[in-house]
Formats: sequence, C-alpha cells, structure tokens
Amino acid sequence: MKTPYSFFHQLRVRWAEVDRQGIVFNGHYLTYFDVAITEYWRAINLPYPDGMADSGSDLYVVKTLINYKGSAEYDDILDIGVHVSRIGLTSITFQLGIFREGERLIDGEVVYVNADPETRRAAPVPDKLRHAIEHFEADHLKSAAAT
Amino acid sequence: MKTPYSFFHQLRVRWAEVDRQGIVFNGHYLTYFDVAITEYWRAINLPYPDGMADSGSDLYVVKTLINYKGSAEYDDILDIGVHVSRIGLTSITFQLGIFREGERLIDGEVVYVNADPETRRAAPVPDKLRHAIEHFEADHLKSAAAT
Amino acid sequence: MKTPYSFFHQLRVRWAEVDRQGIVFNGHYLTYFDVAITEYWRAINLPYPDGMADSGSDLYVVKTLINYKGSAEYDDILDIGVHVSRIGLTSITFQLGIFREGERLIDGEVVYVNADPETRRAAPVPDKLRHAIEHFEADHLKSAAAT
Amino acid sequence: MKTPYSFFHQLRVRWAEVDRQGIVFNGHYLTYFDVAITEYWRAINLPYPDGMADSGSDLYVVKTLINYKGSAEYDDILDIGVHVSRIGLTSITFQLGIFREGERLIDGEVVYVNADPETRRAAPVPDKLRHAIEHFEADHLKSAAAT
Repeated sequence: MKTPYSFFHQLRVRWAEVDRQGIVFNGHYLTYFDVAITEYWRAINLPYPDGMADSGSDLYVVKTLINYKGSAEYDDILDIGVHVSRIGLTSITFQLGIFREGERLIDGEVVYVNADPETRRAAPVPDKLRHAIEHFEADHLKSAAAT
Repeated sequence: MKTPYSFFHQLRVRWAEVDRQGIVFNGHYLTYFDVAITEYWRAINLPYPDGMADSGSDLYVVKTLINYKGSAEYDDILDIGVHVSRIGLTSITFQLGIFREGERLIDGEVVYVNADPETRRAAPVPDKLRHAIEHFEADHLKSAAAT
Repeated sequence: MKTPYSFFHQLRVRWAEVDRQGIVFNGHYLTYFDVAITEYWRAINLPYPDGMADSGSDLYVVKTLINYKGSAEYDDILDIGVHVSRIGLTSITFQLGIFREGERLIDGEVVYVNADPETRRAAPVPDKLRHAIEHFEADHLKSAAAT
Repeated sequence: MKTPYSFFHQLRVRWAEVDRQGIVFNGHYLTYFDVAITEYWRAINLPYPDGMADSGSDLYVVKTLINYKGSAEYDDILDIGVHVSRIGLTSITFQLGIFREGERLIDGEVVYVNADPETRRAAPVPDKLRHAIEHFEADHLKSAAAT
C-alpha cells in the first residue's frame, strides 16, 4: 500500500537546480521537502517560525532520508506529498513523496526535534502544535480514504 | 565502535550555506558529501566523471541518509570522513561523517547505482572501479587500524 | 520615470535562500531573475531551451547587474518584473525589478549573447526569436501605457 | 591596463554549481565573490562578522556587477582576485576577477554599505576598518607593482 498524504504542494524545477547529467542535484530535494513542509505549517495555521514561536516551539531537523526512484528534470512540474506519520514526545516525523504527472520519483522522510526557542534543547511537542497536526491529519487522510 | 574512514576532505562553511537559525541548511550537507566523494574518486585515481567513463561507468544516487547530531555554523572548518562500506553487483555504498574539531556533527550514507553511460540503466560495477575501491579501502582502513 | 515591464512572475522566498542576517543572500536574486526569464520565454511561446533550439539558438549570460534597494526576507511573496529593453545584432538585454507589495527591492539587468548551439559562438539573434520578443513587448508595454 | 589585486583566494568548482550547459550557473559567481571577500576580511585581521561587530560595523551589499568573459566548468580550480578600489563615506567598493590557469573568466564589482549593526542604517565606515583596508591595499598592491 502506498503512503497516503494529507497535503500536496506543487513547484517547478529551476534551471539552477539541474546538474550536468540534466537532472536535479540530489541535495535539492531536501529544499523541495522544506518548501512543502513550510506550506504544510501554513495549511495547519501555524506558519513557521512565528506561529510556532507563539506556541513556545522551534524545530530542528535530526534525520533526513531520500530514496531516488526517478529523476526530475529541468522545467518539470512536481507534486510534493506531505504526511505526519508520527508525533513522539519531542519529535515529529514527516513522510514525503515527489511525483511528476503521477509517477513517483522520490520517497523520503524528515524528522524534526521540537526545541525550546531559547535554549535550543529538546522539549516536549507543545499541545497546540500536536493537536493542530492531529486534527489536520485526521481530516485530510480521512477524506483521502473516502475517494 | 565508530565507523572508520579511509579518506578525509576538509572544507569551510560558506555564508550562503547558513540559514536564519545561524546553522547550515540541512540540504547543504549533501553538497558537502558530494564534494568529499568527488575528492575520493580523485584519490583512487578515477576522477569523476572522465576516469569512470573510460571504465564504461556512470553513477546515479539512489539513496541518501543523514543523521544530524550537531549543527555546523558559518566559517566552521569541517572534516568529512569517507568510507565505502559495500560494493554490490551494481551499487556502491558510502558511509560519511562530518566533524568539527573532532566533534561528530553529521553521520550519513550515500548509495550509488552504477549505470551504463549510454542507457542510464543499472549495470554491474566494472572490475576496474571495484578493484580501485577495494585496494584503496584495504590500504587506508588497514593503516587506520594500525594507529 | 520607472522602467515599465511587459511581464511579471511571482514567487515566494524559501528558507534555504535566507542568510544569517535574515535576508535573501545577494546571489539568489540571479536565480529569481533566471526563473522569471524562463517564464518570459514560455509567455512568448519559445520555451527555453527546446523552443529556441528549434530556431537554431542558444543563450549565454554575458553581463548581470543588481542594485539592492531593500531586502527580501523569508516567506515574502515577490513580484518580478521583466522587460527586454534592447535586441542587438547578437545580444538581448533584460531589465528586471523585484517588488514586495509594490515596494521596489531590487533593480537589475541581464544581458545574453545568442550563440550557435553547436559551436557556442556568438551568432545573430534569429528572426523568429527577435520578432517574438518585439511583438510581445509591443503588445504588453502598450497595454501597460493604457492603464 | 588590467586591474591589480591585493589578495587571491582559490577554490574548486563543485558538481552542484554546474548546470545543464556544463558551466557554472551565473548566480554562483556571487557566492565565489562572497567566499573570497570573507577570506579578505580574515587576511586584514577583521574577520566577518565578529571582527567588524567589535568595530561597530555591519555590511550590506548594495550593488553587484558581473561581466562573463568565459565559463568555469566542473572541477576547475579558480583563482579569485580581490581589491578594494574605493572607500567612500559609508561604502566600500570591491573589484574582483576570476581566473582559470591565468585566463580571466569573470570580472566583477561588489559594493557594500556600512551599517549600524542595531539600526541597519548606513553609517560612516569606522576608522579601524578604513585603516585596516588602506594599509593592506597599500602593502599588497605595492608589492604587486614591484614584481
């Protein structure tokens, strides 16, 4: 079964992101993930970083994983799927997928640790953030199941 | 036991690589890995891509993994450790670590698939490339064990 | 009198493009210019590079100029104005401006030389490309004057 | 007459900086300029930003200009020449050149405005910074003339 996603963001590959092999340089997919997660925070009404700082939260990446199944090329329009698969005591795990006209090119994972904005030390995910994610995921994965 | 490395490359963090949190943006570590692996190919005397093309080989990334244990900052001098941990039929797996004054900031893995330069399809790792890696690793991990 | 523009493209500033001062790194504006010019080629129906290659044309940048009047920040939505101010025998000159909610942050210029795709040497701008630009500019600067 | 330089910094072109045409993307030269100017500040013993903050100074780019005479390619070793050509009341103007084995590929200019670190408004270049540049330029352009 394919990972479902609760949110999608679309972008177009830039010339400066494509290398001499004619494909997107492997590291730029982490920028694409970051852009899509930014839009996810906006979608759940906790825009990064201001909406989170208000909840006493800042986020640091502790793990990224990418599986490259295909290569995005210059000018491709990409759909980036986003889904929070786990909220731990102090961590938030995203599953991501990048698609070109329905073809899955990239699978990946980004794990954040929640930190106190002052000390930058790991701190429990604030309830406001946890609930905002849970409600969004429940609503949107549910409607995905319905289709 | 810590991963040993057979090769190290040093670089300095650039201003353009540091984000508003004052730390290197998470995706740039894949650029650092790429730079270090480029120097690894040079060290084993098969500079990418020309030395490899002569062996009938081109390489594509199929997996990257990063664990972020600390944050590199602007102007930091980083030591990037490189080690080929596995050569499969068609794949080559690198283990990498990024250190600042001996402190491990980043652990990671990059897996390449060897491909035919014309068709871009997976193809067995050419003997010339396999042996060059095996000899280099044997020589340099051995001397690491000796110290 | 302000430079008029014949075309606008909108984008949002990414986290990875913002530096430790909290502002877009100075070099990324050339990426923004490039993205906007890509959309300009699409708008005149000669998408780069395929539409141009069909006309026997490839383009190389020979000059860029940027005046920084203000600083774009993370998550800003930017409007990039584009206008071809001159078509020489072998060169094409773009004037560009970057705006945030109507405030001009950046002024710039990008000059391309037209080249033969095979030899990469300067070659006269093909009539098809010249006319496509002239017609687009005439139509769109005209309607700008009318408003 | 060629611009003389008072300082050189060397770097190697990275894979991620080269585009589908096989040449460095035009915007990355501003990163190269930035790296070389960082090393210039270190050479005059006022490392950016801490050395400058101690002098009550921060710097913002107000103009960049690049003339592209040749194209750097993957793995090229580049020498970046740096020279401060003018110190105004509040501005500092750099002339830069990028060379590959003595061949001039790039000419450029970067103008900074000195700013108060708190208000980010233009402020007179502090005497400490002005004198450090003047002494360095006098010493090093002099010795260049002597060779």
